[in-house]
Amino acid sequence: MPLTFNVVAHDPLSQARLGRLETPHGMIDTPVFMPVGTQATVKALRSSDLLACGASIILGNTYHLYLRPGHELIRSLGGLHEFMGWRLPILTDSGGFQVFSLGSLARVSEDGVTFQSHVDGSRHLLTPERAIDIQLALGSDIMMAFDECTPYPVTYDGARLSMELTGRWAQRCHAAGHKRAGGLFGIVQGSVYKALRDASAKELQDIGFDGYAIGGLSVGEARSVMYDMVAHTAQQLPERQPRYLMGVGKPQDILHAVRLGIDMFDCVLPTRNARNGFLFTSTGKVVIKNARHRADGRPLDPGCDCFTCQHHSRAYLRHLFMAGEILALHLNTVHNVTYYQRLMSRIREAIRLGSLDELTVPEF
Amino acid sequence: MPLTFNVVAHDPLSQARLGRLETPHGMIDTPVFMPVGTQATVKALRSSDLLACGASIILGNTYHLYLRPGHELIRSLGGLHEFMGWRLPILTDSGGFQVFSLGSLARVSEDGVTFQSHVDGSRHLLTPERAIDIQLALGSDIMMAFDECTPYPVTYDGARLSMELTGRWAQRCHAAGHKRAGGLFGIVQGSVYKALRDASAKELQDIGFDGYAIGGLSVGEARSVMYDMVAHTAQQLPERQPRYLMGVGKPQDILHAVRLGIDMFDCVLPTRNARNGFLFTSTGKVVIKNARHRADGRPLDPGCDCFTCQHHSRAYLRHLFMAGEILALHLNTVHNVTYYQRLMSRIREAIRLGSLDELTVPEF
Repeated sequence: MPLTFNVVAHDPLSQARLGRLETPHGMIDTPVFMPVGTQATVKALRSSDLLACGASIILGNTYHLYLRPGHELIRSLGGLHEFMGWRLPILTDSGGFQVFSLGSLARVSEDGVTFQSHVDGSRHLLTPERAIDIQLALGSDIMMAFDECTPYPVTYDGARLSMELTGRWAQRCHAAGHKRAGGLFGIVQGSVYKALRDASAKELQDIGFDGYAIGGLSVGEARSVMYDMVAHTAQQLPERQPRYLMGVGKPQDILHAVRLGIDMFDCVLPTRNARNGFLFTSTGKVVIKNARHRADGRPLDPGCDCFTCQHHSRAYLRHLFMAGEILALHLNTVHNVTYYQRLMSRIREAIRLGSLDELTVPEF
Repeated sequence: MPLTFNVVAHDPLSQARLGRLETPHGMIDTPVFMPVGTQATVKALRSSDLLACGASIILGNTYHLYLRPGHELIRSLGGLHEFMGWRLPILTDSGGFQVFSLGSLARVSEDGVTFQSHVDGSRHLLTPERAIDIQLALGSDIMMAFDECTPYPVTYDGARLSMELTGRWAQRCHAAGHKRAGGLFGIVQGSVYKALRDASAKELQDIGFDGYAIGGLSVGEARSVMYDMVAHTAQQLPERQPRYLMGVGKPQDILHAVRLGIDMFDCVLPTRNARNGFLFTSTGKVVIKNARHRADGRPLDPGCDCFTCQHHSRAYLRHLFMAGEILALHLNTVHNVTYYQRLMSRIREAIRLGSLDELTVPEF
């Protein structure tokens, strides 16, 4: 068994659980948040900065790395860990989502997806087998099955056809990944239809994966609908394997989803917001370009132990941001990534102590 | 005396000397290179990175900081050192050069220079007294006298008038800076005319500064002319005070100027070139976007102990640069700044050992 997952504590008042996930590159405490390292770097951070921020696993994007610099190049240089100098676990997505959101002229067939590169316009075919081969070349600790990104909104029949295709592709990914050293997760689809989510969850479990992701949410549906689908779907997934809610989200969404039984998260929000000057603090959102911070000698968040808060004032951060300095992107990213990691650490500690129901976060 | 300068060794075969310059924020070994921190940051580096690169003093730009975030703001927050989190010495330029190169519609009068901000188009008047007041607000360790940037090429009479104006402004700066805690340097002008350089050097020494800079070179004249002017002018300056060649330059220029008796340097070359993917190595220039580095698993420079060379391959650096990643700017800057600091360290060691004539650098 390439991955070992143990639930070490349950929250008495919710579905939340504390877990330990062992991967080829080491142990992860769950619930966990994975910063997104799209192009073999979490934007504006060195790998050593990521460690200092508390990250224990990052996400790499198969679509981007396949197009640039190419998975065969990364394979020849010893894999993604070696290439980017990150020694802890890496989860790779399958490229399914990005093919539709970033590639153009995507055409879906039973075989896979033909699309045009956003880098140079070249045409490519991504299939379940190829998505697995790329992730194997990258040396991923946790690979994701190749899925079709179901559009939203979508009819029941449209969602069913898409979910069924994802199911057949999941079977092919499972076969292609049989020699894997790391884990392989299936992705539950079915849009906002519980019957389809149930069918998808059952089909994937019949194939048998090392963990299960909930995909196709946070794509425009109401937050209450998203919560309802996560609550329902999480209960269709096996108790003894990790559950991963893809692309979510805001701190309050993560806290809520943990209570619904989710173990793993990823989102570009902390890093992208940092580059746009939107910062997460214990008292809520800070928009650093706001004039009120102009002469404020205090740190962003007095309770934060990140490099940025330990060394710099809001006034300095505002100045760097207004002046368009590269250092602004770095310092803001350090802070937001640390905020998310501390949030997860607080969540884990609260589960351990049985006090998760008392934990609150500001609305962002 | 706010600055103390001691020459501790002379090279037997040239005018080069090893010195120690004591400032309010500590000691600097000379010859020294000062990375340029224009907007309260050396672009793409944190202050802790600068320390790791070996920097012992940086340069701050009065023009930029006056316009944004404003010197009064920096003064109210404890000065530039505190504002940017840099505890070692800072030399500030006077704004003279930038007013002409970055401001627009600059108009010179006896009083000073009226110009339009490159940030917001607002109109400002910079005078010798104001340039000193700004530098005092910043808490500079070494202030520069406000000078007129003599255009190049220029007639003898044009250069003479400009040099004479700079001399009168130097007198006013000296008076305005009499309460300074740090040092104040005069700037020798006179374009490419030795008689004017002599007159300027003499006039400034009659006023009496803590050190002397050679300005108005590396502005388009032939390299041989520049070397000739430095050689001549350095000999007009007092033996017991530091000599600073402004805005120079390439490693071979620095090595040559050290042999002519120069103690201090600044230039945007290492940092700007880094952001453009031009890297300094012990075997010459590396253009990181070049396809030859695509699959090269070796470090940029095997003899370099910087973070970049210790952790990453040319292939990774090329990938980051081609992908437009912020981390490329950071890692390249770390390397180039370290290269320059190591160059200065090798120069100092060679003077100490009496072997400076054997030291060579690649042509860049």
